[in-house]
Amino acid sequence: MPKLTDLPKRILIGRALRSDRLGQTLLPKRIALPVFASDPLSSVAYAPGEVLIMLSLAGVTAYHFSPWITLAVVVLMFTVVASYRQNVRAYPSGGGDYEVANTNLGRRSGLTVASALLVDYVLTVAVSISSGVENLGSAIPFIVEHKTASAVAIIALLTVMNLRGVKESGKLFAIPTYCFVFGVFCLIAWGAVRHWMFGDDLRAPSAGYEIQTEHPGGLTGIALAFLLLRAFSSGCAALTGVEAISNGVPAFRKPKSRNAANTLAMMGAISVTMFCGIIGLALATDVKMAENPATEILIDGAPAGEDYAQDPVITQVAAGVFGDGSFAFVFLAAATALVLFLAANTAYNGFPLLGSILAQDRYLPRQLHTRGDRLAFSNGIVLLAGAAAILVAVYDADSTKLIQLYIVGVFVSFTVSQTGMVRHWNRLLSENPSRAAARRMKRSRAINAFGAFFTGLVLVVVLLTKFTHGAWVSLVGMALFYAVMTAIRRHYDNVSEELVVEETEEEPVRPSRVHSIVLVSKIHKPTLRALSYARLVRSDTLEAVTISVDEEETRELRAAWDRRGIDVPLKILESPYREVTRPVIDYVKRLRRESPRDVVAVYIPEYVVGHWYEQLLHNQSALRLKGRLLFTPGVMVTSVPWQLESSEIAKRRARKYADWNAPGAVRRGPVPGAPPRGNRNGHRNGGDDGRPRG
Amino acid sequence: MPKLTDLPKRILIGRALRSDRLGQTLLPKRIALPVFASDPLSSVAYAPGEVLIMLSLAGVTAYHFSPWITLAVVVLMFTVVASYRQNVRAYPSGGGDYEVANTNLGRRSGLTVASALLVDYVLTVAVSISSGVENLGSAIPFIVEHKTASAVAIIALLTVMNLRGVKESGKLFAIPTYCFVFGVFCLIAWGAVRHWMFGDDLRAPSAGYEIQTEHPGGLTGIALAFLLLRAFSSGCAALTGVEAISNGVPAFRKPKSRNAANTLAMMGAISVTMFCGIIGLALATDVKMAENPATEILIDGAPAGEDYAQDPVITQVAAGVFGDGSFAFVFLAAATALVLFLAANTAYNGFPLLGSILAQDRYLPRQLHTRGDRLAFSNGIVLLAGAAAILVAVYDADSTKLIQLYIVGVFVSFTVSQTGMVRHWNRLLSENPSRAAARRMKRSRAINAFGAFFTGLVLVVVLLTKFTHGAWVSLVGMALFYAVMTAIRRHYDNVSEELVVEETEEEPVRPSRVHSIVLVSKIHKPTLRALSYARLVRSDTLEAVTISVDEEETRELRAAWDRRGIDVPLKILESPYREVTRPVIDYVKRLRRESPRDVVAVYIPEYVVGHWYEQLLHNQSALRLKGRLLFTPGVMVTSVPWQLESSEIAKRRARKYADWNAPGAVRRGPVPGAPPRGNRNGHRNGGDDGRPRG
Repeated sequence: MPKLTDLPKRILIGRALRSDRLGQTLLPKRIALPVFASDPLSSVAYAPGEVLIMLSLAGVTAYHFSPWITLAVVVLMFTVVASYRQNVRAYPSGGGDYEVANTNLGRRSGLTVASALLVDYVLTVAVSISSGVENLGSAIPFIVEHKTASAVAIIALLTVMNLRGVKESGKLFAIPTYCFVFGVFCLIAWGAVRHWMFGDDLRAPSAGYEIQTEHPGGLTGIALAFLLLRAFSSGCAALTGVEAISNGVPAFRKPKSRNAANTLAMMGAISVTMFCGIIGLALATDVKMAENPATEILIDGAPAGEDYAQDPVITQVAAGVFGDGSFAFVFLAAATALVLFLAANTAYNGFPLLGSILAQDRYLPRQLHTRGDRLAFSNGIVLLAGAAAILVAVYDADSTKLIQLYIVGVFVSFTVSQTGMVRHWNRLLSENPSRAAARRMKRSRAINAFGAFFTGLVLVVVLLTKFTHGAWVSLVGMALFYAVMTAIRRHYDNVSEELVVEETEEEPVRPSRVHSIVLVSKIHKPTLRALSYARLVRSDTLEAVTISVDEEETRELRAAWDRRGIDVPLKILESPYREVTRPVIDYVKRLRRESPRDVVAVYIPEYVVGHWYEQLLHNQSALRLKGRLLFTPGVMVTSVPWQLESSEIAKRRARKYADWNAPGAVRRGPVPGAPPRGNRNGHRNGGDDGRPRG
Repeated sequence: MPKLTDLPKRILIGRALRSDRLGQTLLPKRIALPVFASDPLSSVAYAPGEVLIMLSLAGVTAYHFSPWITLAVVVLMFTVVASYRQNVRAYPSGGGDYEVANTNLGRRSGLTVASALLVDYVLTVAVSISSGVENLGSAIPFIVEHKTASAVAIIALLTVMNLRGVKESGKLFAIPTYCFVFGVFCLIAWGAVRHWMFGDDLRAPSAGYEIQTEHPGGLTGIALAFLLLRAFSSGCAALTGVEAISNGVPAFRKPKSRNAANTLAMMGAISVTMFCGIIGLALATDVKMAENPATEILIDGAPAGEDYAQDPVITQVAAGVFGDGSFAFVFLAAATALVLFLAANTAYNGFPLLGSILAQDRYLPRQLHTRGDRLAFSNGIVLLAGAAAILVAVYDADSTKLIQLYIVGVFVSFTVSQTGMVRHWNRLLSENPSRAAARRMKRSRAINAFGAFFTGLVLVVVLLTKFTHGAWVSLVGMALFYAVMTAIRRHYDNVSEELVVEETEEEPVRPSRVHSIVLVSKIHKPTLRALSYARLVRSDTLEAVTISVDEEETRELRAAWDRRGIDVPLKILESPYREVTRPVIDYVKRLRRESPRDVVAVYIPEYVVGHWYEQLLHNQSALRLKGRLLFTPGVMVTSVPWQLESSEIAKRRARKYADWNAPGAVRRGPVPGAPPRGNRNGHRNGGDDGRPRG
């Protein structure tokens, strides 16, 4: 199976670096940009279109407001980028929004941001994949005809890839992202040349259509203002994912903070250029976009009907500039789709990464905190994919509808994080810094304060204009995450309070003696091993215990026991009802009753098998018994394993997965102070088991 | 929830006996009859109808063959009853068909019978419930309008009841069964009186209808013979379940064998009388039955159409004799439905009982063998219910279609078992018995031989006439069971071969020393307990091991360790990648490499919690680690439990289920030599934990 995912990688970038070595590699800016920015860059594939769609509610004449809206988005982009450049400098350890909010504003704010981000990751997958399918659909109509199914299939594919441990790879990300950026820049440049220099009449496929609107005379006053705000809200989709770099500072080469800040600026500049260029070309090529194209687009005066597939702005513009179906057109459509799918994949990396940080703070199950815990990460990935797939199915993979849900989470975390940064600078300023430092801090504070104000304003606008259009779904999702995480944290706090020992406290009753019991069903290798191990661990009394479920078998066992001259007394527990658990529990309880200060050690021979279905055939009674024994205080249960031949299979499988790499590893950067992974493997491999590697 | 199932029981039979005492009660004949015979007795609710339906293929005129077919069924019933009376005498231990075949004909025959019986249990549920729904539907039309849904709902209800541990209760079974028998006898008597004495013109609801047939002129020659054989095959449904008593001999009062044999005879006599009576009355009341009533039944010359619900013969006759909707009619319909549902319930008891015997012979997972293993029995019950529900859904709860599948399994086990009995007598005869004994044996052998011949003949007829109508489904099911059970047995045989030790054989390398490791994450109560237990069990070396996933936490742990002056050395394993499992595994492997003859004992503090979701929040890493450690030879893993407060909930739950009684317990009779269960509880409860009982 790894072949399946290796092949395209090999084709694209030649023989891959060993992934465990890659983990040690710090990212140069040219690689960091595509790794962290595929999400915000790719959003120009849908954000301009959403602006036009909202404006079209007031008719085509409203399109002339689009430059103003673009301007507002650009200003917002500069504000956010400037703000996050402060974050990056203040938290070179990669303090994401969650940590900034948590540190500066307290647990609740932190948790709010975390909930918002988790919802955001789900929506990143849903929106990016839906938009990717729409873009791919402009070149391959079959896909747009089976939109929802295609989107779900791609989610499934990404999920399987990530479950199998295909790690985010810098180089793998670089190629499509740069192709996309290159393509869009060519588009803008060639379009500008043709339009303004050659004076060609560029016409998008939808240039000749009309838009039917409820407000043919256009809107005025408050209604117009509200519509413009809604259009602006939709345009803000271009800002999603900007914060990603601030999580990833440790992955940058030194000087980390400066490189990260510069990458942010670069990303902002590219984004803004592409956004403006596409809006400009859309106006130049006379693109028509409508919320419900089937009824609102008029072709030769008649509604377009259900069969009309409204292509995204970017491909319509490309059709106008390059010509529909031309190589450049197909190339751009493919690159756009690919970069959107990569953007979705970043959520697969970001989600477990955030989960791991939240687990550290005990808002999520502890085991998420350890890297490379396959099972734990897998659950997170499946959760993410499941939620995204449900959204895609419910909203018919319609990116316009999904975007209504999208931006709330992003701006919640922007606003809270920027507010946190203001607090951060206030705190630093209160510590009497030097004059120069104080001046720099004040400047940073001003930037962050403006960022907090502006993003907060946008959040209010988004909530006002989109609440009924879907933003409430995001809020419900956030509330859900918030509630679950609070409950988990409360549970952990309760348990840890229950378990605390004072420095001087001793265990109330110190146990005095150990009474060991070896459970025996018949004399075979596992039993003999358990007996010999139990004998080795010197306890005060040692006896073998068998449960007599079949008189004849018990007689045979007794006889064989004597014949072999085993020097451990054999105790037979009657079980007239052929129960296994109860007689043992009763016996152990009796022992504990007779000498309450004794500890009972129960040795259970256990089979180790290779397949889950073999597990069904063995150990079931032992496991059940163990489960019940653990409820009895003063008992410890020892499994003495016997490795059946078939267990080799499971061992091999475990080895195969041992090198599995957790998603999010690249974004987080290498672990500080960790030995290079290659060396470590070499060492570990020294005389271990001689298995071939590499 | 137990209230739910207790209530009807209480209403029906007053305050229930403590179920564990009931298990000790031997059944008098008057109770044994309904417990074991609800299945065969209830089959008169559908078998006569099936005969008429098959005959109707040749037109109404063919109905005059029905007395002959009835005669054949009666002769067969006498043969089978006579044969099983021999079984009961020869195997007073309750040797069911499986044991008879296994003992006398070998493993393969035994397994064939077992597969047939397992399929048979599934079909008993499907057929009885479908027929019950049809009978209930004659009184309550709503049910027949939602036939499949009703049938599935009743399967679900029975399943829940059995999962919750409602045990087959003799008294509970007696009432509906005797009501049913009483009702049918009244029906026959009153019908006979009205028809023959008063000369009333009794007319069933369908008396005035006509049957449209493909063969209006009737059939002749081979076609007719084949049709009669098919009708006879269907009538043989009356024999299903006759063998049940032979499994249940230990449950009878003494003299067990004679009482069982007499009960068999009684059951046969009642069955035959009811069967003949109903066929007779059906002819007298002019009932019309068709395979596809919608098209084949003509009402005033026009097809009846899809809306026509064909009521079972028994209720049609009751309508004719008592009057449609009269009290007696409704009473009989209800009693019929109830006894059919009880018949289905017997499969819920028989299935796990057979499973337990098969598990003893290692054809099924071992834990099925122990009584009262809730989980294991639950799986069996869910399997049974699931298969039955699928059949019901696929065949639209149509008893006529399901019966085509039904009889194959029954007659396979009849034939093989009777052949086995012939072998049994041959063996006994070869041991030179006394003259009188030999005579008796020869007589028994003759009866069994005739039984084997006759049932074998019927099996051939059933296969010939029904193979394409559904019998192949049963055969596929049997093959499936056979294959799975063979595979399980082979697995167990392989394992047991792998594990065998010769009498004189020693373990190849005797371990010499124990190196104990206590896994520590922080100093809290579970850790201290694990340390104190590990110290108590004297090993050659003891150290505490912690995995450093967070430098600061590790520093704190180290400091606290020193402050408390814990006399166990603390070993810190670096884990730069925040893995938990790998560093420990590597460390243990290193220890084993350094001194291969040492055993490593790993102590893991484990939390005991009350809810499954709490389990998700704890122990996950520990469990994973344990799973991996077991693959390393020379390691034993000890769980030192710490009972969190919430574990009390699970403890209470476990207690609640401790008295759960396995299905099939009543049929099997009390365990020989077991102390009365009441006493035993009293003893166990002595000073245990003082929990209230009763």
